[in-house]
This record gives sequence, structure tokens and C-alpha cells, in this order.
Amino acid sequence: MALKRDDQLILSILIGGVGNHIGAWRRPNSRVEEKYSLSLFQDLIGWAEAAKLHAVFLADTLRLERDSLSTQPLAHLEPVTLLSALAAVTKHIGLIGSISTTFSEPFNVARQLASLDHISGGRAGWNLVTSAWGEENFGRELPPHEERYERGAEFAEVLLKLLRSWDEDALELDRSTGVYAHPDRVHPIDHVGRHFDVRGPLNIARPPQGHPVIAQAGSSGTGQDVAARFADVVFTTGRTTEEDSRAFYASLKARVAAHGRDPDSVKILPGVSPIIGETETEALAIERELNGFIDLVAGRARLSRQLAGTALDDLELDERVPLERLPDVEAVEGRRSRYGVYRALIEEGWTLRRLIEWEVSSAGHFVPVGAPEQIADLLLERFEGGSADGFILLPSYVPEGFQLLTDAVVPILQDRGAFQREYAGETLRQNLGLAPVPELAR
Amino acid sequence: MALKRDDQLILSILIGGVGNHIGAWRRPNSRVEEKYSLSLFQDLIGWAEAAKLHAVFLADTLRLERDSLSTQPLAHLEPVTLLSALAAVTKHIGLIGSISTTFSEPFNVARQLASLDHISGGRAGWNLVTSAWGEENFGRELPPHEERYERGAEFAEVLLKLLRSWDEDALELDRSTGVYAHPDRVHPIDHVGRHFDVRGPLNIARPPQGHPVIAQAGSSGTGQDVAARFADVVFTTGRTTEEDSRAFYASLKARVAAHGRDPDSVKILPGVSPIIGETETEALAIERELNGFIDLVAGRARLSRQLAGTALDDLELDERVPLERLPDVEAVEGRRSRYGVYRALIEEGWTLRRLIEWEVSSAGHFVPVGAPEQIADLLLERFEGGSADGFILLPSYVPEGFQLLTDAVVPILQDRGAFQREYAGETLRQNLGLAPVPELAR
Repeated sequence: MALKRDDQLILSILIGGVGNHIGAWRRPNSRVEEKYSLSLFQDLIGWAEAAKLHAVFLADTLRLERDSLSTQPLAHLEPVTLLSALAAVTKHIGLIGSISTTFSEPFNVARQLASLDHISGGRAGWNLVTSAWGEENFGRELPPHEERYERGAEFAEVLLKLLRSWDEDALELDRSTGVYAHPDRVHPIDHVGRHFDVRGPLNIARPPQGHPVIAQAGSSGTGQDVAARFADVVFTTGRTTEEDSRAFYASLKARVAAHGRDPDSVKILPGVSPIIGETETEALAIERELNGFIDLVAGRARLSRQLAGTALDDLELDERVPLERLPDVEAVEGRRSRYGVYRALIEEGWTLRRLIEWEVSSAGHFVPVGAPEQIADLLLERFEGGSADGFILLPSYVPEGFQLLTDAVVPILQDRGAFQREYAGETLRQNLGLAPVPELAR
Repeated sequence: MALKRDDQLILSILIGGVGNHIGAWRRPNSRVEEKYSLSLFQDLIGWAEAAKLHAVFLADTLRLERDSLSTQPLAHLEPVTLLSALAAVTKHIGLIGSISTTFSEPFNVARQLASLDHISGGRAGWNLVTSAWGEENFGRELPPHEERYERGAEFAEVLLKLLRSWDEDALELDRSTGVYAHPDRVHPIDHVGRHFDVRGPLNIARPPQGHPVIAQAGSSGTGQDVAARFADVVFTTGRTTEEDSRAFYASLKARVAAHGRDPDSVKILPGVSPIIGETETEALAIERELNGFIDLVAGRARLSRQLAGTALDDLELDERVPLERLPDVEAVEGRRSRYGVYRALIEEGWTLRRLIEWEVSSAGHFVPVGAPEQIADLLLERFEGGSADGFILLPSYVPEGFQLLTDAVVPILQDRGAFQREYAGETLRQNLGLAPVPELAR
């Protein structure tokens, strides 16, 4: 399958706080004390912007796992709030955050995304997530997988219509005649659907990008279909083998084409969480250090959640999880595709210990270990092999592991002509090489 | 009624964009082109912080009135997003924004307010509003007045419990033992109520202020009761006569006491929207200029909305609105107290023209006209007369009218010993002289 591909890769980076490895906060310089302060995130995004990365990304969760408190919960500051603050102290880099379609209202989210896009001069991105957790904080049951994605797709449809409800030339601002805007260039959306009735229009003028860049991370069949319809960017679990990655890439691009869209208009960015050192020896030492921090008891609970709540307490660390305990992939209602990755590894023969170590160090992403040159080689190999349009980097530890990516790996990629030395345009959409968003009425 | 009062007044200022007068955007320097850009708001908040004002305030609306587009709709950027951006470029000033309890979920709002409080180092404030408009964008009917306030009160209760669900010493962050936090110091809230079931805890650590400063602006009986239970700050329509203001002040403070709270722990800040000039002559000229911009046709529609939709199209400008058309105050479901102010003016004999001029120049607030010295005198007179603990200033035009308040009126107040020359503490709560928020479990 020959696809037109850009010559240079796209890079975004997760700014999740103290690192993707669960033990990273215990390193001496981790800055874990700043996990709730702007200072840490302002440094991280500053390094990412200096390296000309396309975007930063903030994941989210709507629950606190109390049994994770002793080792470190996943949750951090809320993405819209934090990205808005970071918009004020940056100029070029994209700002992509996760917002749940299951537990929020499209009119509220549209207003926040329109505002973030205005405030940042066209750098907002929305990662459409349907939420697998958190229903107990919203007084309801978690809807089944298919229904969540159905609501998610309708949510996206409403949101995009609202964001596009003002024509580009709706504002006149003519002081002499007193004409502020043209009512006939601002359009009610009159959406009546299964999940939402929204009249509109939005009460904020058209944002600089038309609408924010849409990212999507659900990799189940339903998730891929939502991505194929709406996404500009797809975040996916970076498969451990390049073959798996290539199969996912081809499958998703085919779905995009089946929806009548140009496959090149959707950028697929697998997650990679390198354990990096200045040398390979240092990287291996850091890997040992990080894995030494792992609490296998807490890791077992975390792994159990990734395995759809499968009981693990009675198993020895060197046993395999019995396959008969594991539900079929299609029977899993939340984080279905991630579950599939774990199930496949168990089928391959991985022990409980190996799974726990992998889970807490990677959260299911691909974790290469090496020096900057080795990480750069690997990214290029996958990019050139046709399994990625770029990557989302998930630094395993912060700040040194973050800065080795931005300050050592990126210059190598630039020297090889594979990564930009300047931002290409003004908006995130332009920087990603995406087409402008047309007006709603056209 | 002798109440303990602080010696100095509290000042907050509305940063609504181009000014409280509907015609203000037509002035030559209005910066209306920046209404959706951070640049304008960054300048406004910078001037307010340089003047040591306690807080900025952002109102909100969840609807676009299409018939207001030709003259200027009320809506602007969404408050949480804009205040988060402004948090990153300021150090001391409080950041208070309106969020609706009718059209949002307490868990989402709690996360955003906790994040804003962390990001700003303890400067977040929430203006609890129940929304009188916007239901068509959320697929539902507007609940009746009493039910909206009932939900609003339960919303506030849930929100404050969530924000206080982490003890101050919940985070341990001990690298050597690997103890991140203490699960027994983070408390599920297990709220089960009429409107909300929320298990909690919040998934963000205790914010610097414990919880944000709570503001409330509903001035109906029900609104006053919610304020008396929850509010730290009350924004109220600045009455045209001091007598009315004093009566409201005494009534609200009495309600606070009836709820078992110290009356001095709730700060009452009436709205004042001065038309200010460097001299009285200039102020009068600006008033004429602004009123010359008024579109009486659009103003009639806007007035009709303030009058609960009362038909006005058939009336001459010099007629009075017939009283028999006007519903009783208690029968009005939205913006009830504001309606009462307008109805009282009609009973006093105001003509349609005078009401429209007043509505579009003031949105119902008190509009004195004069030089800085005169405005300062008037604020002090009301403050000393026992009708206010301070004010919320609503600049009638921007930027000059804003800067005359911050750069001319404030120094006069400081010279008279009535306004602070430095911020008193680190957090908004400290700067307002409010007691710390206790932990939930205590």
C-alpha cells in the first residue's frame, strides 16, 4: 500500500508531570514537589517549544484510584486549565488535551476549546476520549463501549458545528455605522440527535483554526471508526513489534479512505516512552534504577485494572495469568484496545512479574532503552518503515529524560533532515500540514 | 445595626472586554478588535494588578442573542480558560469567574477550580451562578427559579467537599521509602443527594486556598440565602440610591448571621460603572458620546429581556411601560432581583427612553458620571455610610475609562488611607481578610 508521506516526522510530547514510569518520581531530581505547580509545566513546554516539537499533549482521568495513592496516582492538573495557562507563556507549540465526551456537555467544551484557540492564536487541540472510568463521580453507570462511542461521535459532530457556526467575515466592527456583526453570518446549528439537542450558535466568534485539531486515541474497531471520521491526529499505543505497528497504520489509513477522506490528512503518532541516557550504559543503569522503585504489590493492582479487573492476587510472580480468567476482547467495555495488547502478551507467555514491570514502566507503550543516537535511529526506522507519521514521546523520567529527548534526540533528527528546524506556520493545523477548516455554511 | 468593618475597602474590577456601556466599542481607541485575544485582557489585568486591586471578575452567559449581534452581544471568552491564561502572567491579583451550576457537573468544575487555584498559587474564585438563559444549548428546559437555586446549593456543597477531600498533609513524597501519599488522608465524599451522587475524592491534591473564594451574585431571597450559606463575596447591583444599598447590605448581613456565620466574613461588593473623565466636563462629554452610540431599536430588545420578555414594540419612547404588562417579581424565573430593580424604576415613572438608555449604559448597575476625585468621593461615601465593604468596578469604556479607575481613582483612595498600597498576603483569601478553610475531616 503506497501512501503519500511527508518527508519529515511529526513529534508531540506528553507533559504528564514527573514521567511515564511509575517510579520516576523517586529519582533525586524528579521535581515531584512541583506536580501541581505551573513552574514545572512551564519548563517542560519551554524545552519542547525550543526543540520545535509540534505539540504537547495532556492525558486525563476522571477518577482517583485510592489504592494507587501510596505509589502515585495517574491524575494531575485538569488539561483545559493547564493548557490555557501554558498558552499564555508560549508562542508556537500546539496544546492538545483530553476531554471526555461521556461526562461533559458539547456546548461547554466548545466554548472552552474556542477560547483556548483564540487565546493561543490557533494552537488548540482536543483529544476526544470517551472515558472508561469515573462514572461514580457523575452519578451514573458507565455506558457500554459501543454507546460511549456513539455518543462520542455525536458529541464531536455537535462540537464541530458549534465551532464553525460563525462565518469568517461575521464580525464587521464598523465604528462609524455601529455595525458590530452580521446576524446572517452566524448560524444556529439546530442539532437534534439521539444524545444531544443543541440549538447554537456558539457565543464566541470563529476561532483562528476554524476548529481545534482533533486527536483520537481509541484503537478498538469503534475507536478507529471515530478516528477515521473526525481525527486529524491519532495517538496509538506504540506496538512493541514494528510489524504490529505497520498493520495498525495500514488498517487505520484504509478506514480513513473508506470515509472518503485523504489518508494523508490523518497523522498517526504511536506512543514511545524511551528510557534514555547520555550513553547506553547510563540508560541501562537508569532502567535498573527505575525498575528497582517498582512496588510489585501496587503494580499488581494497576495491572489488574488494565486486565479489565481480572483477579491476580492468588498468582505467583513467575506464573502466567490463566487464559480462562481473561474475558474476550469484545466483551471488555473500557480501554478495549489496550486490553487487547496485554492479552496478546499473556498469550505469548509473559509472566506476571514481566507484565507488571512492563505495565508500570510503560503504561502499555513501547519502551526502548538507549542513548540519544539509538533512540533517534529507532524512531527513523519506524517512520521510514511505514508504521508512523511521527510519534508521541512519553518521557519515562523528568526532567533529565525529557531534556535528552528535546535537546539531544531532536538535533540528531534535524541533522538527518528528518525534523523541522522552524515551525512551518502560525497555527497548529498549519504546522501539521493540514488543510484549513471550511466554513459551516459552505 | 453596628457591624465590625474593615478600615479599607475591597476593590475588584470586571474585565469584560470593551466596557460595560453597549456603545463603548465604537470609541476610537476601544480595542474591540482584540475582544477575543489575550493581549487586551493581559493589559487590563496588568493595570488592575499594578493598582493592587484585590481581584478581577469575569461574567458569563451561555447563549448568543442573535438580535444583539448587530450592536454587540454580551458573550466573550469562556471564564475558566481566560482566567487560567491570565494566572500565568500575574502574581498577586485574584481571578474570579462565573460558572453555571445548572449546566455543568460539580466534579468537572471542582477539577478546573482546583487546577486554577494550584496554577495561580491560591488566587482562584468561583462566582456561583444558576443561569437564567441558555437551556436551548443543553437540550433541556430551564428549571424553575427555586429548583435552580436548590440545585445550585447542592452543587456548591458537593464542590466544596470535593475540593477539601485531601488533607493538607496527604502528600508524603518520600523518595527513600517510596510513599507518595497517605490513602487514609484522602477522603471519599460519598455524596448522595437530590441532584447529585458523587463518590469522590477529587483526583487533585488540596489546592492552596483549601477551596477557591466563593462569590455569589443572585440577590433574590433565594439567592441571598445561598449567598448567606456559601459566599465569601457578594456581587450585587449597585443601587442608585444609597438608602436601597444600605437596606440590602443590612438584610444580607442579617441572613449571614442567621446561618451561624460571622457577618464580617462575607464581603458585599455592589457594582459601580462610572463614566469617568479626567475632568467632570470630559466625563459629561463622554457620557454624551456614549449615549449617542445607542441604538434604541436594539436597546428595546435588550430591555425587553431584562423585563422578563415583556412586549415593548408598540410603545412610544416617551411612554411608560404599562404596569399591568409586568409580571409580579415572584413570578419571574430568571434574573429575578435584577427584574425587581427595573420594575421599581417603572413604578417611579421612568419612560421607555430613559430605561433603555440606562439599561444599555449600565446593565442595571449604578452609573455615576464625573472626574476621578468625584468618583473616589462617592465610593468612600457609600463605603463609610455602611452600604458596602467595597465595590466591583465595571468600567463603562476601555481602555481609558479602565485606566482612569486604576491609575487615578485608586491613588486618591490610597492617599486617603482607604485602599491598600500592597497585597496583604499570598492568596486571594488572605488578601480579602478571610479565615483559612479547615480540612474536611476536622
